[in-house]
Amino acid sequence: MPPSQVQMDVETGWWEAFALQLEVLPGNDASAYEAARARQETLTKPPGALGRLEDFACWLASWQGREEPQLETAQALVFAGNHGVTARGVSAFPSSVTAQMVENFQSGGAAICQLCEAYGASLSVIALDLDTPTADMTVAPAMSEEECIDAMTRGSLAVNGDADIVLIGEMGIGNTTAAAALCCALLGGEAREWTGPGTGLDDAGVSRKSEAVARALSLHREYCTHPFETLRRVGGRELAAMVGAILEARTRRTPVLLDGYVCCAAALVLDKARAGALDHCLVGHVSAEPAHSCLLAALGKEPVVDLGMRLGEGTGAAIALGVLRGAVAAHNGMATFAGAGVDNQE
Amino acid sequence: MPPSQVQMDVETGWWEAFALQLEVLPGNDASAYEAARARQETLTKPPGALGRLEDFACWLASWQGREEPQLETAQALVFAGNHGVTARGVSAFPSSVTAQMVENFQSGGAAICQLCEAYGASLSVIALDLDTPTADMTVAPAMSEEECIDAMTRGSLAVNGDADIVLIGEMGIGNTTAAAALCCALLGGEAREWTGPGTGLDDAGVSRKSEAVARALSLHREYCTHPFETLRRVGGRELAAMVGAILEARTRRTPVLLDGYVCCAAALVLDKARAGALDHCLVGHVSAEPAHSCLLAALGKEPVVDLGMRLGEGTGAAIALGVLRGAVAAHNGMATFAGAGVDNQE
Repeated sequence: MPPSQVQMDVETGWWEAFALQLEVLPGNDASAYEAARARQETLTKPPGALGRLEDFACWLASWQGREEPQLETAQALVFAGNHGVTARGVSAFPSSVTAQMVENFQSGGAAICQLCEAYGASLSVIALDLDTPTADMTVAPAMSEEECIDAMTRGSLAVNGDADIVLIGEMGIGNTTAAAALCCALLGGEAREWTGPGTGLDDAGVSRKSEAVARALSLHREYCTHPFETLRRVGGRELAAMVGAILEARTRRTPVLLDGYVCCAAALVLDKARAGALDHCLVGHVSAEPAHSCLLAALGKEPVVDLGMRLGEGTGAAIALGVLRGAVAAHNGMATFAGAGVDNQE
Repeated sequence: MPPSQVQMDVETGWWEAFALQLEVLPGNDASAYEAARARQETLTKPPGALGRLEDFACWLASWQGREEPQLETAQALVFAGNHGVTARGVSAFPSSVTAQMVENFQSGGAAICQLCEAYGASLSVIALDLDTPTADMTVAPAMSEEECIDAMTRGSLAVNGDADIVLIGEMGIGNTTAAAALCCALLGGEAREWTGPGTGLDDAGVSRKSEAVARALSLHREYCTHPFETLRRVGGRELAAMVGAILEARTRRTPVLLDGYVCCAAALVLDKARAGALDHCLVGHVSAEPAHSCLLAALGKEPVVDLGMRLGEGTGAAIALGVLRGAVAAHNGMATFAGAGVDNQE
């Protein structure tokens, strides 16, 4: 794309540096992809018989740039933030739980800790100014420009440059409200269509939450001139950090496993800012949070598993990492028809 | 059940010993199940937020009879057999491939070998008289009574009594034809509804296969007085061995992971012989073979994953074992709300 067009596509604003980064995203390695596909055809099984396991292996190959992908270094990132919108009664748990859960992540007691151990991932927990919740989005932008840039930058810096794959997770009481507001602002529809029970709200709570989303949208929608500005106004620190991390991984051509509703709502910001920005991402699971399947349809992403999970933390991405380990083991370790002396006639 | 009723329910036949075994199946451990459910409620996550992972852990607990299930010893059983019905042109591969693949299993080059290594299972390969295919079911019963008893017994004997979980897989050129015939005989419907491309038949091949199934059914249906007799007439040695193994695991209260269409068709024999006979079984995946989803609906089983696989060998069960490892890690290793000092108010 010539420079003049780049100038036209990037609207001026605090997000300009990130928008420029989006303009120069690297693609995947087509020759590594073709080599991996060709390899699959030689393995001792009917063509295509491993279904999506074959696709996963070839997708990893294409982003890692090698016929035989590896998963030696898997990094799970869990970003935590607090939300002023909890003052509107939008969560079943108090905001104090965010910091308590961060301690639980650090001491190994949370679900994501156990899953990372089971599936061989390191866990990095990034707590983002938990003592300073974002502003209540129903009355003001959730973050200042500086706060949003800071959170995105911290997300970017959290990515291990040596990782073979990065898993993206989050924790933040109130953050499904931010996710619903982001989806509603970026994809349209009614607030209630994007609002669900989260950690376990009753019907009255879901109504309060939906009203909060609708109020935030009526306040901010006309100022949402760019997806990054939408993120600043109705998102949250952990969502901004996930945006930064997903973008940084893409710049490094590192494949990414996305998690549930909140994670994918953050990813949506990048997808809306530039088509194809999530080509390096696979979605680990579809959550029980009702709007997640609608969001995945909008992203054009098919989840790896569907197990009725709705915890966040990156737990759905971790389960998918376990599946990818099998896909890679088969891809790299199976014998060929010729090598094993198995007839390949049809 | 009083002895007189047992006598009435078990029709006399070569299968009587197996039918009697079915009458005295042990159930699961209700108190271990309740303890596992109660444990889940104390863990640091909203109730139910791990979805089916919680169900899997509690199901394992109930059959292993302990609040904290374990997966230290996972045994994958792959039974191989050859089928006379291949003379009818029902497979894309020649029968010689069965023995070649058994060698591939033994030398570590097959998909199931790599998945067993990735997910920590031992692999037992049982080749059943590959040089003596079953009779062509379109002209005679596939097996004699002695052959069927022998295969079932060998399946039973293959189960490791110390296993925490058993994975059931198969390999046998032509065996999706046997699976289709079993499903059609035991569940009704037209032969073509149960017939698919298997390893990769073209449309003409699927038609030949469907005709072979229809011909076998017209020959045998009136003699199919018991599911075990149906197994003998239109099944095959590896299917009979899987029946024996699944039954033996139940007798030992060992949980079982079933695989794809052929494996589940064998399991159907037990389900039809006694309702609830598969309560100790979880289905690892739904196959791309079209009839598998219909069969799962008939069995009332929801698969763990849906990844478009259609290889057999136990590969879908192995992927599910990987998922169960995460479920068990979370169940056994997560902190409680009280232990972690996390607020549990709603």
